[in-house]
Amino acid sequence: MRVLGIDPGSRVTGFGVLDIDGQHRHYVASGCIRTPVGGTLPQRIESLLKGIAEVVAAYQPTVAAVEQVFVNVNPQSTLLLGQARGAVISALVIAQLPISEYTALQVKQAVVGNGHADKEQVQHMVQRLLRLNGLPQADAADALAVALTHANHAGSALKQLGGGLKIRRGRLT
Amino acid sequence: MRVLGIDPGSRVTGFGVLDIDGQHRHYVASGCIRTPVGGTLPQRIESLLKGIAEVVAAYQPTVAAVEQVFVNVNPQSTLLLGQARGAVISALVIAQLPISEYTALQVKQAVVGNGHADKEQVQHMVQRLLRLNGLPQADAADALAVALTHANHAGSALKQLGGGLKIRRGRLT
Repeated sequence: MRVLGIDPGSRVTGFGVLDIDGQHRHYVASGCIRTPVGGTLPQRIESLLKGIAEVVAAYQPTVAAVEQVFVNVNPQSTLLLGQARGAVISALVIAQLPISEYTALQVKQAVVGNGHADKEQVQHMVQRLLRLNGLPQADAADALAVALTHANHAGSALKQLGGGLKIRRGRLT
Repeated sequence: MRVLGIDPGSRVTGFGVLDIDGQHRHYVASGCIRTPVGGTLPQRIESLLKGIAEVVAAYQPTVAAVEQVFVNVNPQSTLLLGQARGAVISALVIAQLPISEYTALQVKQAVVGNGHADKEQVQHMVQRLLRLNGLPQADAADALAVALTHANHAGSALKQLGGGLKIRRGRLT
């Protein structure tokens, strides 16, 4: 199973790709898609759609996991984030990838063991769990953390189902 | 010019198609795309993408106009609305349609002449302006009102530009 983890944002969307092989997780790639500053909404959505399509074409993931965004106190920011998230999920639906969603709490709990961990702790644990030489950039680290969370959930779901493949929460393939 | 007007919503997305011929506006079609109740976010986004793609394939609009959504006081509703809007604009970007955006205020002002008009007034004015036999359903009426607003703006933009085609606000073709 190759997981594409995504941390959607209205300006920067992080992505991280992992291979899952039993209890082992292998780092494949990570990075950021930046939407054009000062671009119109259709331009920003187009850059997100193209960016995700390029990542999918380059790394051929078999499943996607998306972080459930933080609902901001500023309604305008929440709307922008929602629009970016809608575009990200549109790109994944078009790529016909099964999509799972995880809250920030689930991700921090899975990776750091503490739902209230800060960004630096997530970066450090992602570096350790994936045996990376350097500290991953914050948005890429969040996306890799989402992929790691999916790896844990998918592993335990498979165990519970006795190795059978079933739809659960998101969809397992 | 054939305009596809869209009023995005997390449950119901209205659409309306008009032909613009000088000062004349001709009704072509209108309706609603309903997302599956209780569906997952990817399922709801998929139904929106397919719904918009079918409308575009059936009526072959040359330009799209989308209502800028009301930012709700409830952050969760704002996020859902943003996601639906992101999916709608993704579908229009994929269909390679030029996209313009109009606020509810602009739409009401263009159609009723009063930015604080209520839904019923919009329905009645849409029926009158397009010489429809019956009152259009509320979501379809809003979408037709967005298309009418674009017709007015595009007309005046063309006049100002002396008939030349230029990018303005959204994009004119």
